[in-house]
Amino acid sequence: MKLRPLGDRVVIKKIEAEETTKSGIVLPGSAKEKPQMAEVIAIGPDVNRDDKVVLNVGDKVIFSKYSGNEVKLDGEEYTILNLSDILAVIE
Amino acid sequence: MKLRPLGDRVVIKKIEAEETTKSGIVLPGSAKEKPQMAEVIAIGPDVNRDDKVVLNVGDKVIFSKYSGNEVKLDGEEYTILNLSDILAVIE
Amino acid sequence: MKLRPLGDRVVIKKIEAEETTKSGIVLPGSAKEKPQMAEVIAIGPDVNRDDKVVLNVGDKVIFSKYSGNEVKLDGEEYTILNLSDILAVIE
Amino acid sequence: MKLRPLGDRVVIKKIEAEETTKSGIVLPGSAKEKPQMAEVIAIGPDVNRDDKVVLNVGDKVIFSKYSGNEVKLDGEEYTILNLSDILAVIE
Amino acid sequence: MKLRPLGDRVVIKKIEAEETTKSGIVLPGSAKEKPQMAEVIAIGPDVNRDDKVVLNVGDKVIFSKYSGNEVKLDGEEYTILNLSDILAVIE
Amino acid sequence: MKLRPLGDRVVIKKIEAEETTKSGIVLPGSAKEKPQMAEVIAIGPDVNRDDKVVLNVGDKVIFSKYSGNEVKLDGEEYTILNLSDILAVIE
Amino acid sequence: MKLRPLGDRVVIKKIEAEETTKSGIVLPGSAKEKPQMAEVIAIGPDVNRDDKVVLNVGDKVIFSKYSGNEVKLDGEEYTILNLSDILAVIE
Repeated sequence: MKLRPLGDRVVIKKIEAEETTKSGIVLPGSAKEKPQMAEVIAIGPDVNRDDKVVLNVGDKVIFSKYSGNEVKLDGEEYTILNLSDILAVIE
Repeated sequence: MKLRPLGDRVVIKKIEAEETTKSGIVLPGSAKEKPQMAEVIAIGPDVNRDDKVVLNVGDKVIFSKYSGNEVKLDGEEYTILNLSDILAVIE
Repeated sequence: MKLRPLGDRVVIKKIEAEETTKSGIVLPGSAKEKPQMAEVIAIGPDVNRDDKVVLNVGDKVIFSKYSGNEVKLDGEEYTILNLSDILAVIE
Repeated sequence: MKLRPLGDRVVIKKIEAEETTKSGIVLPGSAKEKPQMAEVIAIGPDVNRDDKVVLNVGDKVIFSKYSGNEVKLDGEEYTILNLSDILAVIE
Repeated sequence: MKLRPLGDRVVIKKIEAEETTKSGIVLPGSAKEKPQMAEVIAIGPDVNRDDKVVLNVGDKVIFSKYSGNEVKLDGEEYTILNLSDILAVIE
Repeated sequence: MKLRPLGDRVVIKKIEAEETTKSGIVLPGSAKEKPQMAEVIAIGPDVNRDDKVVLNVGDKVIFSKYSGNEVKLDGEEYTILNLSDILAVIE
Repeated sequence: MKLRPLGDRVVIKKIEAEETTKSGIVLPGSAKEKPQMAEVIAIGPDVNRDDKVVLNVGDKVIFSKYSGNEVKLDGEEYTILNLSDILAVIE
């Protein structure tokens, strides 16, 4: 089974971060909940509009942690979110 | 009796998921309420605009769990929601 | 006396549902308040725009239960709502 | 003194309804506060745009009860509201 | 010193109403706070757009009581508000 | 060091008002917090669009007291706000 | 590893301000939380649209303190925010 996202939605799979917070650093305000890394699994037909490539399947991305909807398929957890919830690509 | 949705609305019928949460996994935040699977029963005239096929009757889809309006017709429960509440098609 | 709705408003008359909830079924969340059936009494001039027939007087429709404004005329209760609050036509 | 409403505003004068609620009827939810009848006193220049007559002075209308601003002029109470707060004309 | 309002803003000077509420009348809801009268002192360049005169300096107007920002200049109190907060002109 | 505001932002420097409230005057509601005077220090490239001069550096302006972001540069306090938060120019 | 921001997003690195508040100054209201300085690390493809240079990598900027999402990469803390959250460039 595969997920085909609609519109400008993107299916991602979260990458667990092994990083540990360096002791002594106090993150201000909402920053304690940092965005997460994920791998792009599938992209909707409106993501790369007008032949302008914005995202590719396999890209590592940073996204807003609490955005999107989680869905489990074949025992795997995915997140479906809007392109606008993806902040940056990690190169 | 049949439902003919208006505009870009879609009539779906929920598919009960038999999956059980794998013990030991703690889902963060609102993710505990996962989107659900459904089958597309009827689509409004604006869903497949400009000859661009987005959805077909019979498609299995993932939708946001709390979106839409439930309606009972001939003893069957349906949900009427906007196309924008459908996240992805399962292929 | 007759009601002539303005813009894309629709005057409907609710149809009391005789259906009783089948015992044992627990409807999740807001779904307990189900949309209702109604008959279209009058439609505003912007409902069937550009010669595209969306609704006809006499149609049986499903609408969001808490939308619209109720009004009593000649002892009869009507509801005036926007076309966007009508979810589907029952055929 | 006369009121000349700006834009798509309308000046109305409420008509007190003599109707009494038929005993035994329980109106659900917000429906207890029903819209009211009023007579159109003056209309702004944008109400009947593009030679399309929407409202006339003297029309009896139904409007959303809590919309608009009340103003007293020469001892008379008027309400100034937007055209969009007028639901229907009574014919 | 003079105030030159920007955009579609209007500078007005409130007119104290000598009217007293006629005893015995109970105004429903938010209507107890009635709009006020004012005189137009200055108008921004976008008020009378496209040679369409909407307001003139010296007009007596009705405006929403709590809209706008009060400012004191040379010991006089003025209110600066948007054209959209002016409901009607008194003629 | 100088601040170059982006878009339609404006950098202003507040002018302390020496005025004292005339005793005995009770300002209604939110009016107790009056807008303030400031001098325009720098203007973004979109403020005077299409060769239409709206503001000049050095203008004395009235602005909404709680709008904008304060910033300290070289020991001086400035406020950066949107053009839409500037209500009027004092001439 | 490098961050490539999408759309009109900007990656910045905060500059710790050594400034100390001059004693005796009371900052009114929300102004106690002042915007911060940062250096522009990377800019999305829509920041300098239509050959109009708005920002360059290396620019020192003022931004709204609580806007944006913080992300840690290779042990360094970055903030990803929208161009609209950048208030001014320091020259």
